[in-house]
Amino acid sequence: MPIHMIDLILKKRDRGTLSGDEIRYLVRGAAGETIPVEQLAAWLMAAWLNGLKLDETRALTVAMRDSGVKFDPTPLGKVAVDKHSTGGVGDKTSFLVAPIAAACGVVVPMISGRALGHTGGTLDKLEAIPGYRTALSLEEFEAVLRECGASIVSQTPALVPADRVLYALRDRTGTVENAGLICASILSKKLAAGLDALVLDVKTGSGAFLREREDGEFLAALMVATAEATGTRTVALMTDMGQPLGSAAGNWIELVESVELMRGKRPAQSEDLRELSLILAGWMIHLGGQAESPGAGYARAEAAMMDGSALRVFLAMVQAQGGDVSVFDGPEKFHKPGATRLVEAWASGYIASMDTTALGWAVQRTGAGREKAGEPVDPHAGIVFHARRGALVEKGMPLATLYATNEAHLDEPEKLLKEAIDFCDTPPEPVPLVSRVFTRSEAEKHLANAVR
Amino acid sequence: MPIHMIDLILKKRDRGTLSGDEIRYLVRGAAGETIPVEQLAAWLMAAWLNGLKLDETRALTVAMRDSGVKFDPTPLGKVAVDKHSTGGVGDKTSFLVAPIAAACGVVVPMISGRALGHTGGTLDKLEAIPGYRTALSLEEFEAVLRECGASIVSQTPALVPADRVLYALRDRTGTVENAGLICASILSKKLAAGLDALVLDVKTGSGAFLREREDGEFLAALMVATAEATGTRTVALMTDMGQPLGSAAGNWIELVESVELMRGKRPAQSEDLRELSLILAGWMIHLGGQAESPGAGYARAEAAMMDGSALRVFLAMVQAQGGDVSVFDGPEKFHKPGATRLVEAWASGYIASMDTTALGWAVQRTGAGREKAGEPVDPHAGIVFHARRGALVEKGMPLATLYATNEAHLDEPEKLLKEAIDFCDTPPEPVPLVSRVFTRSEAEKHLANAVR
Repeated sequence: MPIHMIDLILKKRDRGTLSGDEIRYLVRGAAGETIPVEQLAAWLMAAWLNGLKLDETRALTVAMRDSGVKFDPTPLGKVAVDKHSTGGVGDKTSFLVAPIAAACGVVVPMISGRALGHTGGTLDKLEAIPGYRTALSLEEFEAVLRECGASIVSQTPALVPADRVLYALRDRTGTVENAGLICASILSKKLAAGLDALVLDVKTGSGAFLREREDGEFLAALMVATAEATGTRTVALMTDMGQPLGSAAGNWIELVESVELMRGKRPAQSEDLRELSLILAGWMIHLGGQAESPGAGYARAEAAMMDGSALRVFLAMVQAQGGDVSVFDGPEKFHKPGATRLVEAWASGYIASMDTTALGWAVQRTGAGREKAGEPVDPHAGIVFHARRGALVEKGMPLATLYATNEAHLDEPEKLLKEAIDFCDTPPEPVPLVSRVFTRSEAEKHLANAVR
Repeated sequence: MPIHMIDLILKKRDRGTLSGDEIRYLVRGAAGETIPVEQLAAWLMAAWLNGLKLDETRALTVAMRDSGVKFDPTPLGKVAVDKHSTGGVGDKTSFLVAPIAAACGVVVPMISGRALGHTGGTLDKLEAIPGYRTALSLEEFEAVLRECGASIVSQTPALVPADRVLYALRDRTGTVENAGLICASILSKKLAAGLDALVLDVKTGSGAFLREREDGEFLAALMVATAEATGTRTVALMTDMGQPLGSAAGNWIELVESVELMRGKRPAQSEDLRELSLILAGWMIHLGGQAESPGAGYARAEAAMMDGSALRVFLAMVQAQGGDVSVFDGPEKFHKPGATRLVEAWASGYIASMDTTALGWAVQRTGAGREKAGEPVDPHAGIVFHARRGALVEKGMPLATLYATNEAHLDEPEKLLKEAIDFCDTPPEPVPLVSRVFTRSEAEKHLANAVR
């Protein structure tokens, strides 16, 4: 029986379940642009409203993963492990976990993304380093990985073409926030790198992509179960994005903060970033077979952070990808923002809460982010936060330093920042950095109980 | 605030109600092809699944009606009345009601459609008359109406362009069968002819477009309330499509059956067609102010049918639109099908039921219909039925005559026909020809009670 797209639309519209063959037909038609966009759009809306079954999500993920060229890390002779985060403000753990895990014996083929909306992009941050090339061929990618153990690059057009088509459509048709579609989009790209293991960092809180904790947990469980079903050992950590991670949010300033930690420094404002990076790297090392437990992985990760081996991997990777490592000799000297403004506390009290999404927009408005895909970003722009949630501050104390492209880009971020932070008289309840871990069995239990 | 299509998609996806301005933005964008088809498609699927509110349906109908050129019957100096049917097999009432109503003093500016799926098309049937032109300019349309009182033409591209775009999209995206979208599509085209009154014939039963009686009633009530809200006096009749209407289903053979009735003949096999045509025409005459009640309208209609005045209007219209009226002198002589086959009853008993949709496909397969838009139809093909539901037949009695393009087009219609008709030992319950009438107040009551 030949498959017709109209029948797949009707099936999903009427709450049916697509077969594996039907999902593959759809994905091939999307990648090859042989199915008209209006039919894909109607199917996406039906899927958004009626949901995808677990089997459909798995079939979609696998079909998308296989829709183009894939990377094969086998010739490297090491276990391939990666980390993915659903994105946040000041989230720079990639710069830490990739070299740490590589220093501990796994290989980290990390294909990453750009700034979008209120969250920053790993590639934009790395491109703050003069000369750093993110657009490597798969051959160059493999060579950097062989030499350094870690490489952070951009997606090539040949990799997962189905996602490029479907994601652009979802963006235009209001069908982005659906667990099955998000899962397939994220995992297809990660799994196309031939991973043996994957650690997922699913954010919760005011700066998270999915604002409802329940939605984040469902997505985390769905991604773990789906990736495991394709043969990749996977774990998901639910982590706090109720405030920016670490002190810096921007581009160059995030690299500076990361490198400081790999130089063994421990600024108080970076403690949560340090802790989360070590936990994530610990899981990567454990799933990659280089430590018996995540705890043992954490200890190895901390050692690699403190003994300089992680930094050596990081600098080797930067150099191998064409970056000028000399900028890290005097990172403050290299930082040349167009305009700077210190924002002082406008009240006294405990920092009660932060609207982290709004803070993300403040960072974006300094010039560090983009409004539309394809726009350039300012490598020197961003915000450094001097106080964390729960801190007791006095009026007039420095709260944040804004670095903007020019004077005109200071007022709006300041306004957004001031609206985003609330003070109170008593210390707020502390929020755990990692609130939940979904292993395969936890994920399957969660999905069985979730009525979706 | 500028309107963005993405927000209208999100609103409908999240079960919101679009404002009049938002609906007008969408319709203008569809007609002008300034909104990408994938966005229209996503909105249509969201509307299909979440439904349209009454206000949205009304706004959509009016915006679509106003999306292009309109016909203004005011200069004709008569009340403009039309009839619309949701379509069926052997439904040829247009050829009767248009001249009858015109003969009784109203003007009937009928913009009609083509065969699609299992139902025939008024224009295809008329084009069986040598020379008959359906594609008139609005000026020619007005001239024919002025001369004859009735004119049946095809839609011009300038009329309701939004429907052309949206209907094609609905067809490709599985979003056809939605009451609000159907209502707006039907009424926008009818109301663009500047009607004072409209009679709707909503079919129920095995050959109806909407198979569930409940769906048909909701659509009928929705169309009446919507058209009335725009200032057009409107009534809807729920009528039986549990068997073909009259004896003939095809193209030329339907015209022959209609003309026989207007010549005052009363073949038993055409009695339901005659009765329904007089009821519909009676309502048209009543709503058009030419009779005090539908019953009085019926009497006037019957008089016009019997005294030859309706036939005179019909023949004048055919001639005015370029048709050769001499073919009606010997209609049987003009009929030259490529192949003919008599199908005899293969069992004895009462005709219990007919799958009228299957019979419609049988008619289509003789060559009378088309599989794809744009294909030609055979004017001489079709099926004449010799027995009606409830008739007691004996094995071997003539049941139907197939007229096909050639011998190769006989077997499939015969097979479909034999599968579509069931016999039983006791007479089946009679089905009323008109089961319900929705006036404005009935329609509003029905909508208020319908939980949609």
